[in-house]
Amino acid sequence: MHKFKKPKTLAELAEIVEAEVKGDPKYIVDGVATLKAADSKSISFLTNSLYRKYLLHTKAGAVILSKDFLPDCPGNALLTENPHAAYAKIASLCLADQARAAQRLAASSIIAESAEIADTAVIKDNVVIGENVKIGADTVIEAGTVIADNVVIGENCHIYPNVTLYHSVVLGNRVIVHASTVIGSDGFGFAHDNGSWINVPQLGRVRIADDVDIGAHTTIDRGAIEDTVIEQGVKIDNQVQIGHNVIIGAHTVIAGCAAFSGSCKIGRYCLIGGGATFAGHITVCDSAQIAGMTTVTRSIDNPGTYSSGTGMLPASQWRKSVVHFRKLDKLVKRVKTLERGRGKKDQTSEKKS
Amino acid sequence: MHKFKKPKTLAELAEIVEAEVKGDPKYIVDGVATLKAADSKSISFLTNSLYRKYLLHTKAGAVILSKDFLPDCPGNALLTENPHAAYAKIASLCLADQARAAQRLAASSIIAESAEIADTAVIKDNVVIGENVKIGADTVIEAGTVIADNVVIGENCHIYPNVTLYHSVVLGNRVIVHASTVIGSDGFGFAHDNGSWINVPQLGRVRIADDVDIGAHTTIDRGAIEDTVIEQGVKIDNQVQIGHNVIIGAHTVIAGCAAFSGSCKIGRYCLIGGGATFAGHITVCDSAQIAGMTTVTRSIDNPGTYSSGTGMLPASQWRKSVVHFRKLDKLVKRVKTLERGRGKKDQTSEKKS
Amino acid sequence: MHKFKKPKTLAELAEIVEAEVKGDPKYIVDGVATLKAADSKSISFLTNSLYRKYLLHTKAGAVILSKDFLPDCPGNALLTENPHAAYAKIASLCLADQARAAQRLAASSIIAESAEIADTAVIKDNVVIGENVKIGADTVIEAGTVIADNVVIGENCHIYPNVTLYHSVVLGNRVIVHASTVIGSDGFGFAHDNGSWINVPQLGRVRIADDVDIGAHTTIDRGAIEDTVIEQGVKIDNQVQIGHNVIIGAHTVIAGCAAFSGSCKIGRYCLIGGGATFAGHITVCDSAQIAGMTTVTRSIDNPGTYSSGTGMLPASQWRKSVVHFRKLDKLVKRVKTLERGRGKKDQTSEKKS
Repeated sequence: MHKFKKPKTLAELAEIVEAEVKGDPKYIVDGVATLKAADSKSISFLTNSLYRKYLLHTKAGAVILSKDFLPDCPGNALLTENPHAAYAKIASLCLADQARAAQRLAASSIIAESAEIADTAVIKDNVVIGENVKIGADTVIEAGTVIADNVVIGENCHIYPNVTLYHSVVLGNRVIVHASTVIGSDGFGFAHDNGSWINVPQLGRVRIADDVDIGAHTTIDRGAIEDTVIEQGVKIDNQVQIGHNVIIGAHTVIAGCAAFSGSCKIGRYCLIGGGATFAGHITVCDSAQIAGMTTVTRSIDNPGTYSSGTGMLPASQWRKSVVHFRKLDKLVKRVKTLERGRGKKDQTSEKKS
Repeated sequence: MHKFKKPKTLAELAEIVEAEVKGDPKYIVDGVATLKAADSKSISFLTNSLYRKYLLHTKAGAVILSKDFLPDCPGNALLTENPHAAYAKIASLCLADQARAAQRLAASSIIAESAEIADTAVIKDNVVIGENVKIGADTVIEAGTVIADNVVIGENCHIYPNVTLYHSVVLGNRVIVHASTVIGSDGFGFAHDNGSWINVPQLGRVRIADDVDIGAHTTIDRGAIEDTVIEQGVKIDNQVQIGHNVIIGAHTVIAGCAAFSGSCKIGRYCLIGGGATFAGHITVCDSAQIAGMTTVTRSIDNPGTYSSGTGMLPASQWRKSVVHFRKLDKLVKRVKTLERGRGKKDQTSEKKS
Repeated sequence: MHKFKKPKTLAELAEIVEAEVKGDPKYIVDGVATLKAADSKSISFLTNSLYRKYLLHTKAGAVILSKDFLPDCPGNALLTENPHAAYAKIASLCLADQARAAQRLAASSIIAESAEIADTAVIKDNVVIGENVKIGADTVIEAGTVIADNVVIGENCHIYPNVTLYHSVVLGNRVIVHASTVIGSDGFGFAHDNGSWINVPQLGRVRIADDVDIGAHTTIDRGAIEDTVIEQGVKIDNQVQIGHNVIIGAHTVIAGCAAFSGSCKIGRYCLIGGGATFAGHITVCDSAQIAGMTTVTRSIDNPGTYSSGTGMLPASQWRKSVVHFRKLDKLVKRVKTLERGRGKKDQTSEKKS
């Protein structure tokens, strides 16, 4: 079970998520747990009908669910149209955050004198913070993270261990960055000069707006001249690569291992599947859906779903199809020849008749 | 040359790997080296016929090989059916482990008082270890690694530098985790709520069984409610992404850059090629082989080999094939029309004759 | 604006990049800025005709450009055939390097007594440096980086935060390694032994030549027996995976997320697109161009451009093409049947006539 910061009545929880209490509104719970693991002091939830079988016999003090499942609920319930969102809200607002229980500034952290750290921020062990860095209220920086000069981090952010923020990166409020992620590394830019390559200095920054989530091992490069920009509410999974001067529109969701070449401009409310890749300078309109592993090689102007690839086949069958794919041009010509032949013959027949 | 912890006779080595000594069983060697680099004090090995040319003139004190190559061996030999495995066993059991030569608990490591560290474990510089962590005998934690609260690590594990283990992750015995890998980061789960996304707390753990190897820069997310599970003897390469609630069956091998979406269930003894990707909730049976870069979009019930993609072509030829791939539906219709035409004509011919 | 270490006359800058001064050669500038942001003390640049619109009204003290744009330039100019390279050279030679302004050996760094650190090298906070490491003049090691025993790093290198260099890795001069990159991790090699897998020790090293750039989150494995080798002037982007015993030829450029299986040998001056993947033991000749996301499954002997994949389609159209791709073998047979039919009929017709 995961404990709340302090116990809550069902009425209090219902108010937070605009739900309706079925049963005793004064009933007190002090944490969340799964239907299977819950005891009478926990509130549980049914967000996936796969788990319905556990509802009838749950020992939970209350269950968050939609009205369809109410008849099976043995005790108190919080009734809502969106139990998934209600559960997420309650858990994120009420669960005790162990990170914040720690000491405020770890003795082993190394903080430049010119840095401004809010009184309620928590800086953990072995964190290194450079000159002129600003860190807002209630933000937590976990162990081993390195924050270079002139970085600005807003309020209520959570930066996990071993993250690297390069100089001048800007993070809004309530931004989450998971372990080992790198933000602000140099964009990949070289000028050709007599058979070798010269580094082009990357003078832009990375700006990340409020409520952005970034997974582990994700890389976001700084801009060459202008900034790389992640707009409000964007959710980014693990091992995503975002090149220099990319702009990701607000509330777009990007699954793991997706990759954006330099200067892509992705719209708002897009859903980007895992491993999807974008060629440089591509523009994608709002609300487009890109299937997992799609190779996006040209701009998308109409919302809708886009895919690429051949789908999976048993290898023996796949080898045959690939051989024919290579010769598709010849096949099309053979069909054309047949059509011409038929055309002639039709003419011939017509003449004959 | 790579030195043994202490010199060994060929008889002692033969016993470890159940090999037969050809030559002098009392001959003493004190390290391993390649056929080319070996001197009379080292044992060498021939595991790949490409290197046969070096066998005749090797100065090695002895060579691990199979009987096919014995006639070319100029000196002592350890004869075995599987020289690759014999070499691997000897090297991993007998080579001096420099990591363990270090001090036990580095003065710069930061270890919570409630952590239980076995007497023979080695904790190197700048490691951070949280509350209630347990670390077993002979385990080595390299510099800069961060281990959050309630993590349990078994015996004889080796955790390389700059790794992050999130809270409550469980590792068995003899687990290897290479540099910068992240285990236990939050699964990618969001509830939709009035046009924005709310984080769904990830309450499960990651459990990793005995004898698992994990490469560098790999990410394994914690489960949403239940745990993410890596079973015994699984071998995972670099830059692999494993989503929440994935289960990887025992002894499966996963090459670099493969990616598993949430709730995949992969069987035992599978071979997963580099860059292969798995859609969410896919099930794969035991002993399946997935070729590199295959996009697995549906479950696999029969062992065998699976592939996807078009194979590589010169770009000019490839462009033609892609144009036709886009119009395959039309091509099929044209062939259908031709077939109907022929059908008619055949009927006509028959009537005529 | 980004400040120079010290102000320069246009004549001095022109000499560095072999450009011609148009205007006042004694004019002094003290930094670089974009056409839009520049003031009269900065030099700006026009390397992309997209930004031509800002040229007419720029306040820059001088502009680096090619002669085509000279008529639009309102003030002083540095005229050169390759403004991109000229800008890159001036910026990298003249910009003040904030990294070097720091203290030389941070008090919190942990350096083995046997390590040899050049007098002008900078070692930042929480860096850990092992036994017998050698670090050359003017090299900067950023915070949190871990350098294992026997590593050799040349002069003028820049290693960013949280990098891990495993033991015995060798870096030349002017090598840049971005944050969290891992060099020298074990190659992925296992010997099969009675249903389980034994680790094969990886005894080779990684050798990286002069002027190599490596992005963030890239992984380069050490060789099994021989070394993994990155030749001079190679440029590697983020999240690239390089397996054991790979050799990358001089001046080859590798975009993000590309992956090389073990023992690939890539030529010189190749251009490797983002996400391109190479099967094991592939050889690629000099000057080959591999398009983004190409799956290279066989060796390439002729320079030229190579591609794979189907290109992106709207999902409904894509699904049709994929269904037909799966049945291409049948379609080819149907066309063959039609051709035979026509053959017969042609014969029949001929006989008839």
